[in-house]
Amino acid sequence: MGYNLRLLISCPDRKGLIAAISSFIAMHDGNILCADQYVSEGGAEATFFMRLEIEGTGFGLERDEFRGAFAPLARKHAMDWRVSYTDTPKRMAILVSHYDHCLTDLLWRWDSGELEAEIPLVISNHPELASRVEAYGIPFYHLPVSKETKTEQESTVLGLLAEQGVDLVILARYMQILSPAFVDAYPNRIVNIHHSFLPAFAGADPYRRAHERGVKTIGATAHYVTDELDAGPIIHQDVAHVTHRDTVDDLVRLGREVERRVLARAVRWHLEDRILVDGVRTVVFE
Amino acid sequence: MGYNLRLLISCPDRKGLIAAISSFIAMHDGNILCADQYVSEGGAEATFFMRLEIEGTGFGLERDEFRGAFAPLARKHAMDWRVSYTDTPKRMAILVSHYDHCLTDLLWRWDSGELEAEIPLVISNHPELASRVEAYGIPFYHLPVSKETKTEQESTVLGLLAEQGVDLVILARYMQILSPAFVDAYPNRIVNIHHSFLPAFAGADPYRRAHERGVKTIGATAHYVTDELDAGPIIHQDVAHVTHRDTVDDLVRLGREVERRVLARAVRWHLEDRILVDGVRTVVFE
Amino acid sequence: MGYNLRLLISCPDRKGLIAAISSFIAMHDGNILCADQYVSEGGAEATFFMRLEIEGTGFGLERDEFRGAFAPLARKHAMDWRVSYTDTPKRMAILVSHYDHCLTDLLWRWDSGELEAEIPLVISNHPELASRVEAYGIPFYHLPVSKETKTEQESTVLGLLAEQGVDLVILARYMQILSPAFVDAYPNRIVNIHHSFLPAFAGADPYRRAHERGVKTIGATAHYVTDELDAGPIIHQDVAHVTHRDTVDDLVRLGREVERRVLARAVRWHLEDRILVDGVRTVVFE
Amino acid sequence: MGYNLRLLISCPDRKGLIAAISSFIAMHDGNILCADQYVSEGGAEATFFMRLEIEGTGFGLERDEFRGAFAPLARKHAMDWRVSYTDTPKRMAILVSHYDHCLTDLLWRWDSGELEAEIPLVISNHPELASRVEAYGIPFYHLPVSKETKTEQESTVLGLLAEQGVDLVILARYMQILSPAFVDAYPNRIVNIHHSFLPAFAGADPYRRAHERGVKTIGATAHYVTDELDAGPIIHQDVAHVTHRDTVDDLVRLGREVERRVLARAVRWHLEDRILVDGVRTVVFE
Repeated sequence: MGYNLRLLISCPDRKGLIAAISSFIAMHDGNILCADQYVSEGGAEATFFMRLEIEGTGFGLERDEFRGAFAPLARKHAMDWRVSYTDTPKRMAILVSHYDHCLTDLLWRWDSGELEAEIPLVISNHPELASRVEAYGIPFYHLPVSKETKTEQESTVLGLLAEQGVDLVILARYMQILSPAFVDAYPNRIVNIHHSFLPAFAGADPYRRAHERGVKTIGATAHYVTDELDAGPIIHQDVAHVTHRDTVDDLVRLGREVERRVLARAVRWHLEDRILVDGVRTVVFE
Repeated sequence: MGYNLRLLISCPDRKGLIAAISSFIAMHDGNILCADQYVSEGGAEATFFMRLEIEGTGFGLERDEFRGAFAPLARKHAMDWRVSYTDTPKRMAILVSHYDHCLTDLLWRWDSGELEAEIPLVISNHPELASRVEAYGIPFYHLPVSKETKTEQESTVLGLLAEQGVDLVILARYMQILSPAFVDAYPNRIVNIHHSFLPAFAGADPYRRAHERGVKTIGATAHYVTDELDAGPIIHQDVAHVTHRDTVDDLVRLGREVERRVLARAVRWHLEDRILVDGVRTVVFE
Repeated sequence: MGYNLRLLISCPDRKGLIAAISSFIAMHDGNILCADQYVSEGGAEATFFMRLEIEGTGFGLERDEFRGAFAPLARKHAMDWRVSYTDTPKRMAILVSHYDHCLTDLLWRWDSGELEAEIPLVISNHPELASRVEAYGIPFYHLPVSKETKTEQESTVLGLLAEQGVDLVILARYMQILSPAFVDAYPNRIVNIHHSFLPAFAGADPYRRAHERGVKTIGATAHYVTDELDAGPIIHQDVAHVTHRDTVDDLVRLGREVERRVLARAVRWHLEDRILVDGVRTVVFE
Repeated sequence: MGYNLRLLISCPDRKGLIAAISSFIAMHDGNILCADQYVSEGGAEATFFMRLEIEGTGFGLERDEFRGAFAPLARKHAMDWRVSYTDTPKRMAILVSHYDHCLTDLLWRWDSGELEAEIPLVISNHPELASRVEAYGIPFYHLPVSKETKTEQESTVLGLLAEQGVDLVILARYMQILSPAFVDAYPNRIVNIHHSFLPAFAGADPYRRAHERGVKTIGATAHYVTDELDAGPIIHQDVAHVTHRDTVDDLVRLGREVERRVLARAVRWHLEDRILVDGVRTVVFE
């Protein structure tokens, strides 16, 4: 079966970038299946973003040749770039605590072939979701954590992730704040999901407080994890409508539904290399 | 042409309220066209809310008799209640500053027969929307306001509202904070619309800041005005999806679209007596 | 733990029905927690619909007394009515073929406590979903069907449903057309889900044809099954947006997402006795 | 003030197209602000679609030079292409009958600067919307039509459109079927809006029939007009949710809201040269 290359590039914007990049591909007989491009005007200097999907068959550069061949062009334009191959699915770890809705949804989608990934392991600080995970033939690690053991537990987790060659970490309702060291080990490669309300309710028991306030929508945000809590680049957001009849339990239930939908979409986009980070923003080439 | 009564009730919850109220209506040969009911468990004591729509034709109580006949039952159950008649449309004033999108939308809907209201006047602290309003045959008052003249201007506005027998005040992007005295004159009868974001961006230039933050949804909230800024009971909320390609101008444009849709729905619900206030929440019998 | 009664009524509309019904409840010391009412003008004669939720604790009629006590009132007003008790969950069977998305979603929601039901069995005309079902401790019956064995297989299915005292049958992508005899055995108690497009694409391979036609939305409809294929009373509908970039596979994937969401909501409403049938329409007291 | 070029291309797909096109632009010192590309696999042969937005300032080809310079490349690849300039807004005519909601919405958006267009005229087969149009300083032509005068009236309309150099015709609820000759004069340049339901209700009085059928969503479709009624390439679709409580009038009202939203978006996309036609499908580079 064939495969494709996906080339993701960001660099300072200047004239002729698309020509330079696409000519490089054409020179090596590459067939571009899909090209997306965006120029961000946000900062002091405009930034160029590009995603190319290139047919593997017929392309003149072997995997071990691409890096060397592309390096001069990349250097010339000060590119931040990466390439991936669709026949090498990303290796994705899922971290979870008690709530199972995001985990279950991801496992079902993965099993249905919706997610281009391998899932070498699921890690939880609680034991109860073991059988759910193992039913899919995926190893489950129970690594409890307390204030005292946090550093040690994180180190065990990081060890497992490294051992398994994990590319992407999904926090599927993992109710622990990761240390800066952990976050730095997977920059823009840890995806978190959390509820969001209008107005916001920081702190404990947000659904109860949203109910008391009488909000008419509840939402969820998927984002990359950075050192600043819940302030990382937003990947996707959505909301559900609620009414005065909805109890706190209903809000929680509807929140679960929005959370799993929003997280699944963010994970899918990441796995398909559709997301580039632009400071605190994301560029998502849907 | 026939007309209906609309009876809105809230009172401490107890057994037998629906029977007592509906028996009163039946005793006077009333035909209930529509009945909605809700019990709020929010506070120390449960509160009962009800909305009845009763056919005017054949009902045994004339308008001048209803109050007297219903009073004993209302007193017995400590009801907060009101009655309205569908052939007596509410009198609605619109206050507006520069932005015309909500105003234009409300005027078009009103002209199309979507809103059961009379609009005796539109008041603005700026002159430029006069012809837009006068094209619909509605008087337009230009009442400029500054820090120094705020008290005086508000008093002029209140005078006009009183003179015109206004029931409902719509702040259709009226960029002035109303004084507590003004707000108290129209409790739960002033409807405001404002943008809402996830996360929230209080203060100036929210669309620019939302863009910089890279939000993926922008929203709007319609609420009753209370003394606490933008913290009154929420009537309706909705959002629009945005992407990295949307500029600040696009966000403003999409925001306008959400704002006018959300405000129009809130106004319609109020005019049809579908909203009851439950502390800081609303009960909306759609 | 307490329980509630749910009383569902439809009858020819006339004055005084709410008073008569609520007075009956009050007379027996019933506390009405929730009351919904609707009058349909659709046919030759207006029809009255009502749903009451009454607190079990303190209500003066025992389960075995209710029917007898309510019968005279019901007879007087020619009521079609039923009562259910929240501590007696409905018994729901799921029929499924190959596609597992609706089944998996329903099982997860049921396991999460979202659905007030017992699931005594899942029946499939194919064997492959057995382990998925049995993981939840639910018996799975593989009952293959062919043109020749259809009558016999349906009779076996009906036998199992009767044996298990099933109240409600969910066709969670069961790719067989039920015979009129089967449908008649569960009037307004068989819920089906199917895709819906604008425009419609009857017949084979609808997603491919929708893709060729370039539709921009794909939808799903949950409805009660009647003898006329896919023409039974509609319970719920929703859509997802698609673009030119979405392949046939993407449409199928997004269709799965809409289907499971729409079906889950319809099932929930049925289990909570929120749906009354009004000819070919449904009244849904959300 | 600066301006941009927009270059739209479709041609048989082959390797190197992006390189060839972007190199041509780079060779003439063009700065590509925005590039979108798509390959359709639909037919016997894959088709390549591209949209480029190029900064006018600094671009080495004057307006009168572009065509000549680009022609050889276009010929070599059998391109169907067009170029437009953002400082030359399209000239858009609106045709309307009685219903004013789409017209009013388009006029307001145009007046607000949301639509990059000139509106040299509005034509109606009825007189009543004259003042609405003239309030915006736009000439209004009342051209009544009957079975007998249809050919003559269309000829008058076509004459006016030609005289005014119209690029785009919007049927904003124009309740006349255009003749093939009219349609052929503006291929993929006539945008129509019509309601859409699940299931579809062809013929008269669709909202009444949708209500009788008890649909739970009502939708609208914007499409290019072709000779086959309502079967032209779909540009955009959306729906609104409805309940059993919504009367036929409510459906009509909600339908208006969906129609104006869907049409406005389609018009905007066309004016920004975001739509390419791919047989009976559209490629929309949002």
